[in-house]
Amino acid sequence: MERLPKCPANYVPLTPLTFIKRASMVYSNRTSIIYGGVSFTWRQTYERCCRLAYSLRSLNVVKNDVVSVLAPNVPALYEMHFAVPMAGAVLNAMNTRLDAKNIATILCHSEAKVFFVDYQYVPLASEALQMLDNRNVPMPLVIVVDDVDKPTGVRLGELEYELLVSHGNPLYQGEELEDEWDAISLNYTSGTTSEPKGVVYSHRGAFLSTMSLIQGWEMGTEAVYMWSLPMFHCNGWTFTWGVAARGGTNVCIRNTTAEEMYRSISQHKVTHMCCAPIVFNILLEAKPHERCEIKSTVNILTGGAPPPAALLEKMEALGFHIMHAYGLTEATGPALVCEWQTKWNHLPKDQQARLKARQGVGILTLADVDVKNKDTMESVPHDGKTMGEIVLRGSSIMKGYLKDEKETAKAFYKGWFLTGDVGVIHPDGYLEIKDRSKDVIISGGENISSVELESILFKHPAILEAAVVAMPHPKWGESPCAFVVLKNTGSTTEPEILEYCRKKMSKFMVPKKVEFVKELPKTGTGKVVKVELRKVAKTLQISESIQTNKKRSPKEVHLHHTRYHQNEHHDQENVFAMSRL
Amino acid sequence: MERLPKCPANYVPLTPLTFIKRASMVYSNRTSIIYGGVSFTWRQTYERCCRLAYSLRSLNVVKNDVVSVLAPNVPALYEMHFAVPMAGAVLNAMNTRLDAKNIATILCHSEAKVFFVDYQYVPLASEALQMLDNRNVPMPLVIVVDDVDKPTGVRLGELEYELLVSHGNPLYQGEELEDEWDAISLNYTSGTTSEPKGVVYSHRGAFLSTMSLIQGWEMGTEAVYMWSLPMFHCNGWTFTWGVAARGGTNVCIRNTTAEEMYRSISQHKVTHMCCAPIVFNILLEAKPHERCEIKSTVNILTGGAPPPAALLEKMEALGFHIMHAYGLTEATGPALVCEWQTKWNHLPKDQQARLKARQGVGILTLADVDVKNKDTMESVPHDGKTMGEIVLRGSSIMKGYLKDEKETAKAFYKGWFLTGDVGVIHPDGYLEIKDRSKDVIISGGENISSVELESILFKHPAILEAAVVAMPHPKWGESPCAFVVLKNTGSTTEPEILEYCRKKMSKFMVPKKVEFVKELPKTGTGKVVKVELRKVAKTLQISESIQTNKKRSPKEVHLHHTRYHQNEHHDQENVFAMSRL
Repeated sequence: MERLPKCPANYVPLTPLTFIKRASMVYSNRTSIIYGGVSFTWRQTYERCCRLAYSLRSLNVVKNDVVSVLAPNVPALYEMHFAVPMAGAVLNAMNTRLDAKNIATILCHSEAKVFFVDYQYVPLASEALQMLDNRNVPMPLVIVVDDVDKPTGVRLGELEYELLVSHGNPLYQGEELEDEWDAISLNYTSGTTSEPKGVVYSHRGAFLSTMSLIQGWEMGTEAVYMWSLPMFHCNGWTFTWGVAARGGTNVCIRNTTAEEMYRSISQHKVTHMCCAPIVFNILLEAKPHERCEIKSTVNILTGGAPPPAALLEKMEALGFHIMHAYGLTEATGPALVCEWQTKWNHLPKDQQARLKARQGVGILTLADVDVKNKDTMESVPHDGKTMGEIVLRGSSIMKGYLKDEKETAKAFYKGWFLTGDVGVIHPDGYLEIKDRSKDVIISGGENISSVELESILFKHPAILEAAVVAMPHPKWGESPCAFVVLKNTGSTTEPEILEYCRKKMSKFMVPKKVEFVKELPKTGTGKVVKVELRKVAKTLQISESIQTNKKRSPKEVHLHHTRYHQNEHHDQENVFAMSRL
Repeated sequence: MERLPKCPANYVPLTPLTFIKRASMVYSNRTSIIYGGVSFTWRQTYERCCRLAYSLRSLNVVKNDVVSVLAPNVPALYEMHFAVPMAGAVLNAMNTRLDAKNIATILCHSEAKVFFVDYQYVPLASEALQMLDNRNVPMPLVIVVDDVDKPTGVRLGELEYELLVSHGNPLYQGEELEDEWDAISLNYTSGTTSEPKGVVYSHRGAFLSTMSLIQGWEMGTEAVYMWSLPMFHCNGWTFTWGVAARGGTNVCIRNTTAEEMYRSISQHKVTHMCCAPIVFNILLEAKPHERCEIKSTVNILTGGAPPPAALLEKMEALGFHIMHAYGLTEATGPALVCEWQTKWNHLPKDQQARLKARQGVGILTLADVDVKNKDTMESVPHDGKTMGEIVLRGSSIMKGYLKDEKETAKAFYKGWFLTGDVGVIHPDGYLEIKDRSKDVIISGGENISSVELESILFKHPAILEAAVVAMPHPKWGESPCAFVVLKNTGSTTEPEILEYCRKKMSKFMVPKKVEFVKELPKTGTGKVVKVELRKVAKTLQISESIQTNKKRSPKEVHLHHTRYHQNEHHDQENVFAMSRL
């Protein structure tokens, strides 16, 4: 048995690159991408990828070089998901909601060799590049991605994306992948520390996750997939690669406005889309003139937060069929999906919604999903009650954090990846999140690190202590709420703190509420009891529109420690379960 | 990028064993297996597998030991697909249609340590074991599998399957798989040489094939899968593992009679089944009292031969939805599936049938499928005309042939696995078989080696030369037709040759027609031109019922060489395309 060796015929490294080559062969004339007035076939898309990969090699991009890109869901970003790894390089699709400082940090940390910038983000990119220049670090080669449908002429330097495509060699086959463990992409997550962490995926992990997710979602051939989910989120939860695998059609849209989404769904007969539940609000709150009739079922895979029951019902009434997934950047996107069971069809709607909001069951390529007592690493019983940390194990888990051995070692513990989320397992084997042990706030599908926010607040001259937790937000699902203890000598206002934050962080991270308190609730060992703060945050109103400038002294709001304790068991049922993606 | 090492959390060997463990967790109370009056849940099935694996270890079964089994599609055979590899051993599910001599050969060649025998095959197994004993080779430990629904008490030695299950440890977790390249199963194929060849699958290959096939067939959760396809055929085309992956229900049946199939479909609401097209005949020719109404669509994956248009139409009218696949034992079952395209729905039925009979497109985990000129190894153009050899490459291709370096080396050529089949690629990227270069006859879904048959015929004292080709058979799809040149001194009859064959080979291999000819058509280098013989065979009548004993002299049938040449281009369109599984 053991004398049968691997050979090139029976052992080929697993990689999503096989999907596009196959698509070019067997779905050659099917539409691969639609964007405004532009469309491509799979043969064309493959050829464009070959050309781009060739041009990248010509620009001295070599194995393991990072190619960063700052772009919305345009065809170029889709193509780069194949072209960059074909050149042997590693794709770093950046969150377009980041501020210049974060972008500069990522360009610097990843040592990006090439930086593609969509024309719309040229001002932001210029600012980030200026910061890099000031830090005196090597600058990436900048290439603007002009709009392929309606070119604008905006440039930043000499090169433009289409020039690379047109000058490339369409017969270039890509670099041979020697090891499926090689890196394919790099996705930064805000995580819980102040510096972004670079999550590295292998070709193997990307391939297996893609296989699992088109499976778990039961996405058939000829799917028409609308890009409402940013491709920079875990490479579009792997559906960048997945749509090629199924020979589907990508409907690229620059903005996820209600009008653009409804028009695309109607015009292109969209069958599939992914999004955070926040997008439900956009679709549900659309004005009559922005809407189109949904003629056949649109399947939605949602994550980032469990979909609220009321929203689920409204969406399904409109013709959307929703599946809930849970995952993390570190797990190459969704790691669990809430597989529906036909026997649930006859249950009352609210009960259905509750079942659907559970995080569900592990995808097929995960070797194991469990909930464990973190101290003993023993599995919790399947009683729907006993809480423990959700842990994952399998080949779709990240390689690790780039240049961060410490955080990588912390993430992998006794053979498991620690999600940081706290959950239970129900008797039917479905998993549900009950709380999170990491301090992440998910706002509009984006992770915000409370630790990062707190460290910025600490630096404010009037602030003694600060703790940031999630508070419910009607539009964004969650938003950061800061509890602040002022120095005895300190004096400031909420608008002033918000203004201070706006200067120091990306806009989406700015707290929507600052609550002044005399002291923070703490454990015996001095750790802030965030679960208490979250309960209070739920009772507060967001302050986005507050523009008053009334100075507050530290005594004005006296939030007594015991108050939290009194509330401790009151809203156990309301504990804000969450999914992170 | 390269400093991020594999660890137990992010690199877990791929194996179908994860599917059953997962099923026991997330589909615990769903029905896993139904067989007559017996049924199990996934938790029970997993527990039974753990127990059996433990008992196998107790019987000193260790890594890479072969466990052979001779059984129809009963629960025990299903369970062994997990329990045997859990014990670190290699499952060898034997073709129950083989004769004692072939079974003995396989037991000997595989050095089987344990031999499970279904009670129904005890006489056949005893005969084979007697042969082994005569050859003085080590005997396997024999364990009878009695009927779990209606125990018969038949035994062969001390041990019985249920005893092993009941004595096992339900908490045994199985041996840890260290390398996904390790062998999981061993399937003998008759191939083209006279000795059976042992095709070895790895855990990796089995996992990936399973993933691809539940994908390619779009088998959802809660599938109810009826075992009309023998599990000994490429491990049930991987659906042994696949049904566990989807948490479906296995409907096991001992016999594929029309009555049993119809009753199962109706009673258990079967949604999926696999079979060779011959099973279509069984279903279509059922007598009224054997039939039940098919209330919802039953999806059929068929292979072994392209489904004839007339059968397709009749089957679909009954409520069956058919997908055609092509593969080989060496490719872990189906390697191509004929993915349907909605735009074909409006075509005339005969055109649809023609499209459906094509072999289709490669499954997702195959890295590459191509048709190549075997001399130059250049790809043929996608013109639907230029023929070449079908070649495959990817991680679902076998490890190799057990203890047969020569045949393994022949199968793997310049980085490709050679299927031995000749085909074309159509402009739409779909592949179609036009001929086969290997001499395999597929009768009722079983491969018959013409070379093996010929070598037996050669040994007949009256026969000078013999060539065996496929001839169409109304029931079996194809059957062997022998062209025989008698020695000048030779004199025999067709019934006598058939009787001779019955003694020397498994029943299904016996030719259905013997045609006496003066000489065989040959190429300039003396190679028999089988394509010519196949054309003649098509015009002949099968002789199964011939019982006359009229002696023939070699001159009685004079089949002139040139006759073939005249016919050469006549029935180009009728060339009998085929799929092998």
